[in-house]
Amino acid sequence: MKLDDDIALAHRLADAAGAAIRPYFRSVTAERKGDATPVTLADRAAEEAMRAILAAERPDDTVIGEEFGTTQGTSGRSWVLDPIDGTAGFLAGRALFGTLIALLVDGFPVLGVIDQPIARERWVGASGRVTTLNDQPVKTRPCRELAEATIATTGPHYFSQHEGDHFMALASQTDYRRMVMGGDCYNYAMLATGQLDIVCEAGLKLHDWAALVPVVEGAGGTMADWNGDPLHIGSEGHVLALGDPARLDDAIEALAAGHSHRH
Amino acid sequence: MKLDDDIALAHRLADAAGAAIRPYFRSVTAERKGDATPVTLADRAAEEAMRAILAAERPDDTVIGEEFGTTQGTSGRSWVLDPIDGTAGFLAGRALFGTLIALLVDGFPVLGVIDQPIARERWVGASGRVTTLNDQPVKTRPCRELAEATIATTGPHYFSQHEGDHFMALASQTDYRRMVMGGDCYNYAMLATGQLDIVCEAGLKLHDWAALVPVVEGAGGTMADWNGDPLHIGSEGHVLALGDPARLDDAIEALAAGHSHRH
Repeated sequence: MKLDDDIALAHRLADAAGAAIRPYFRSVTAERKGDATPVTLADRAAEEAMRAILAAERPDDTVIGEEFGTTQGTSGRSWVLDPIDGTAGFLAGRALFGTLIALLVDGFPVLGVIDQPIARERWVGASGRVTTLNDQPVKTRPCRELAEATIATTGPHYFSQHEGDHFMALASQTDYRRMVMGGDCYNYAMLATGQLDIVCEAGLKLHDWAALVPVVEGAGGTMADWNGDPLHIGSEGHVLALGDPARLDDAIEALAAGHSHRH
Repeated sequence: MKLDDDIALAHRLADAAGAAIRPYFRSVTAERKGDATPVTLADRAAEEAMRAILAAERPDDTVIGEEFGTTQGTSGRSWVLDPIDGTAGFLAGRALFGTLIALLVDGFPVLGVIDQPIARERWVGASGRVTTLNDQPVKTRPCRELAEATIATTGPHYFSQHEGDHFMALASQTDYRRMVMGGDCYNYAMLATGQLDIVCEAGLKLHDWAALVPVVEGAGGTMADWNGDPLHIGSEGHVLALGDPARLDDAIEALAAGHSHRH
């Protein structure tokens, strides 16, 4: 089956990226030499390793990478690569960053990998399949109401004032004591594993969110923009993930209420 | 040597706590049954395990635990225990929480352990010793100016408005793009390991900060309250850690400037 081949290839891409990244984690030798921080070196080495495999095995596919841009193909299939999502966390020595690998067919993500190469945790989601963590199925958890939801976001410094108002309107209706900050892609992986109920972020680019959609949806969750519309290549980067799709309307309503706080 | 005995005992306490905690991590069975969340069960089991060892081996020492309060001793020595620092992060499935163990002699922390039982990382600091991570020495990194500092804090929701103003006055002078949120005690461990330059938090209790001081200071850093004064049992919980002690005055000055933003 073609999808099985794609999944096997995605595993090889993640293996190659992890091998390239691990030597730089908590490395201090290259720190603070202009732009060549350990994370920049690791980012580039990992994307080069993945692009080399794709160039050899899928020469007709488009490759869209966070570091080296787009190599246009002809197949209608696009591999979207973010070698290190969560660069600040990487630099802070946390094993919460992730290598993100997505396959888009006709612009829609059909396969996604979130790989944490230090803790050696790998989530794989694909259309029509149950999401797995290290080959074991995972699922999101139910959430009866916003008031019992645990919400996560990477940090308020990634929001504009306006976006922050919307976020707070939602966060204030959740179980605020349990809110967690930091985490980047790892929050979506934890949502898919039933440890979080909502992740809400702004400013995400295609390479930041494309891999997350199959992982979250294959675990029973849902992803949308802040209007509740499906994410697509032209989305503005306002990303909402819910473990329990039944809470989507509540979350969208709460986010929208943030607007009135401005007047 | 007495300190060696204390360190060996602290290792056994951390071993016992980790064994008690691991079965509850990412466990969902006890979730949402009133107060008996996995983290509450793990917290209690770990503190009970540590208190049992101390009762048998150090019956004359005081024990101050986050879960079960104070058992007064007569020796002038106090073991301060926080079985799970970072309960929200624990519940979110992140291996960044820590078991904190401190020994205070005459009110001053002389020994501290930060143990991460999932990643199996253990930092040990003691008076006159170099801090270790899994028995290998670690040290903080130099920081030439605030503008190149990476700052961490667990989250803005742990600050009052007033405290948040002070924090932002400091954070805005650091390398803001690299600021990380979340992390709890793990941020101090990463500062001791040379991955972060500043950690700034409010609302910490004795059991939250006592173990951090020997770890940070034994790695070459310094800890103080937001006025630059040494932390002591009566401190109000405004905690500042610096990897490079030469930046302490700059950080205190920046924090104090936050006050004028209110007028």
